[in-house]
Amino acid sequence: MHRVTVKRKEHFNAAHRLHNPNWTDEKNEEVFDKCNNPNWHGHNYEVIVSLTGEVDPETGYVYDMKKLSDLIKSQVLNRFDHKNLNLDTEEFKNLNPTAENIVKVIYDLLRDKIEEKYEMKITLYETERNFVEYPA
Amino acid sequence: MHRVTVKRKEHFNAAHRLHNPNWTDEKNEEVFDKCNNPNWHGHNYEVIVSLTGEVDPETGYVYDMKKLSDLIKSQVLNRFDHKNLNLDTEEFKNLNPTAENIVKVIYDLLRDKIEEKYEMKITLYETERNFVEYPA
Amino acid sequence: MHRVTVKRKEHFNAAHRLHNPNWTDEKNEEVFDKCNNPNWHGHNYEVIVSLTGEVDPETGYVYDMKKLSDLIKSQVLNRFDHKNLNLDTEEFKNLNPTAENIVKVIYDLLRDKIEEKYEMKITLYETERNFVEYPA
Amino acid sequence: MHRVTVKRKEHFNAAHRLHNPNWTDEKNEEVFDKCNNPNWHGHNYEVIVSLTGEVDPETGYVYDMKKLSDLIKSQVLNRFDHKNLNLDTEEFKNLNPTAENIVKVIYDLLRDKIEEKYEMKITLYETERNFVEYPA
Amino acid sequence: MHRVTVKRKEHFNAAHRLHNPNWTDEKNEEVFDKCNNPNWHGHNYEVIVSLTGEVDPETGYVYDMKKLSDLIKSQVLNRFDHKNLNLDTEEFKNLNPTAENIVKVIYDLLRDKIEEKYEMKITLYETERNFVEYPA
Amino acid sequence: MHRVTVKRKEHFNAAHRLHNPNWTDEKNEEVFDKCNNPNWHGHNYEVIVSLTGEVDPETGYVYDMKKLSDLIKSQVLNRFDHKNLNLDTEEFKNLNPTAENIVKVIYDLLRDKIEEKYEMKITLYETERNFVEYPA
Repeated sequence: MHRVTVKRKEHFNAAHRLHNPNWTDEKNEEVFDKCNNPNWHGHNYEVIVSLTGEVDPETGYVYDMKKLSDLIKSQVLNRFDHKNLNLDTEEFKNLNPTAENIVKVIYDLLRDKIEEKYEMKITLYETERNFVEYPA
Repeated sequence: MHRVTVKRKEHFNAAHRLHNPNWTDEKNEEVFDKCNNPNWHGHNYEVIVSLTGEVDPETGYVYDMKKLSDLIKSQVLNRFDHKNLNLDTEEFKNLNPTAENIVKVIYDLLRDKIEEKYEMKITLYETERNFVEYPA
Repeated sequence: MHRVTVKRKEHFNAAHRLHNPNWTDEKNEEVFDKCNNPNWHGHNYEVIVSLTGEVDPETGYVYDMKKLSDLIKSQVLNRFDHKNLNLDTEEFKNLNPTAENIVKVIYDLLRDKIEEKYEMKITLYETERNFVEYPA
Repeated sequence: MHRVTVKRKEHFNAAHRLHNPNWTDEKNEEVFDKCNNPNWHGHNYEVIVSLTGEVDPETGYVYDMKKLSDLIKSQVLNRFDHKNLNLDTEEFKNLNPTAENIVKVIYDLLRDKIEEKYEMKITLYETERNFVEYPA
Repeated sequence: MHRVTVKRKEHFNAAHRLHNPNWTDEKNEEVFDKCNNPNWHGHNYEVIVSLTGEVDPETGYVYDMKKLSDLIKSQVLNRFDHKNLNLDTEEFKNLNPTAENIVKVIYDLLRDKIEEKYEMKITLYETERNFVEYPA
Repeated sequence: MHRVTVKRKEHFNAAHRLHNPNWTDEKNEEVFDKCNNPNWHGHNYEVIVSLTGEVDPETGYVYDMKKLSDLIKSQVLNRFDHKNLNLDTEEFKNLNPTAENIVKVIYDLLRDKIEEKYEMKITLYETERNFVEYPA
């Protein structure tokens, strides 16, 4: 038996604002600059879910890509697509929606829906030039 | 002398909401669906400005790409990047920020900064799968 | 009112074989080379549908992109996705499935579902390096 | 001396069918869905070969990219390009040509042509949205 | 019979310098800035050749893509790939190698190798963000 | 606290020549082929800098992407963009500018500007098909 990593890419569009409520407006603007705009801005996010596991000799699959795509839709896209991350979601009510925090939230939303035997990694593109991976 | 089309690509990130204030909420939701979210959503917009004109025999240029890039920055990116198109801009205070309307606004913002002798066309990507061109 | 071109990209995966039944096997192999493989080969096709028309002042739309996407799915993807173009489709039973012929078939399948007032153009990528447009 | 990973991307187009001959037709269709089409479908596959090793101080190379490209052509592309993986190849006569199995076959075809001192990894894109890596 | 545009993409890597020998060094630096570096710089150029013509009912082809690819190789890539455009080519000995001039030179090199009945257009990417088309 | 990898992509254009001064011209041409052209050739290089570290609970950042982008500009792009790597830079006066050597030079230029607590990795694309990573 051989272990393979399989990857599925999906996307969602969302608005957000970077802001720390414990700071003054001046400090927020200094640190987060344009991303602190109180009226929000937004992105086309691309998310790649990687699962590593053994190839099932009956199917030749590590994981059914259709099932993985459906899971990403139900757990991630339905929550975040065409939403304001700060206002419309439970996850970012009290958590700054930086790419670093979003990628971990996505990991946590998927982790307990996928059997322990699979290693999981998430890559999140905020723009073509800025992207993150978790776990590191 | 030969005529060439030169193209320059830039990008900006913005939030927006599709909404017609003359309609009921029900009709707005029916027509604009997820794009009508009152809390906004957003995109990474890619904009391509095309200029057609004669190649200057002294420079070998139709138009200086550095100058074109600076013009797109001053006229378009500074206005729209990291902004809420509906709330933060004059242009979309009373105009629905669909891709079709944004592309024409960008054209108009650039048209009178560029000499008449150049034909101009704008391509705007709202997502990798949805994009528009003006004039048609 | 202003006229804009709107574009929607979709994709499908299919098998095909290039073959002219009026020719000898030798001539078929000479002309179509590897694409004549009697056991088929295949591609990830990308299709872009462009519609040009006036922007509706009520919606700010030329055409609802969700409706266009659904139409491409019902008319094109459901017919061709994960199919053998030569064996599984009416359209290519007696028509060689070259990119040039596929792009016209897609145009014809969509043309009478979309009002006459819209100009339509189809771009079809067979590979990243070979692609076609119709009408020219 | 420093160790670097070098990567070379190539592509091939092929037809395939996912099928387990030990199962009923019903079970095959249930598990493999559209990918079980008895008349085949196909893909543009992108393959990336990664080699990790020490940089030769004489050449500044880990591995000659021209030599690697030629090796991928002779070992992989000549075997699979414009072929039906199930019918035209020895490798998939009795092995289901899922991305997970193809990526391991490619690894094995290259592994004994490349000196042991190089670590090797293969990435295979079946579509832009589905891709795999081996070893994991 | 129907008319289709077929497109083939190829690439080459070259060094160049933008310079007008009739100008002072100061003026050259003022106009061409970093592109005037006397020690050269370079690009990965992508070239797309578009041919428009009638689809041959026997082949289903407008033009054999293999033949077009070979022609681009013999006429364009063999001349310019891994070359210094200013020093190594006849075409740019006395012509400033701007994208605008390169695209016309490529057009002229291909035009008389391709029958008159085909319309031809060339697109040249100097970078992902700067590209040109000829004829306009 | 969670560890995340953040990535930033930038690009530069440069000319270079692969050459070993200790070898004969024949051997240089045999090993480096077209890349040995004494008149240089060039590339659009894409560089991705990856930093791995803990997410700061105050900012939600591993590292400020604006600060990282500025650092890449001051340390890498200002040195190499629109330059001849062999002639115009200290780093490659006596070092063959292969992708393997460039990627390590970039790593070294950035390493002592970024706190030890961050793991760093560099990916360098010489072309879309040839790319390298360091450390391996």
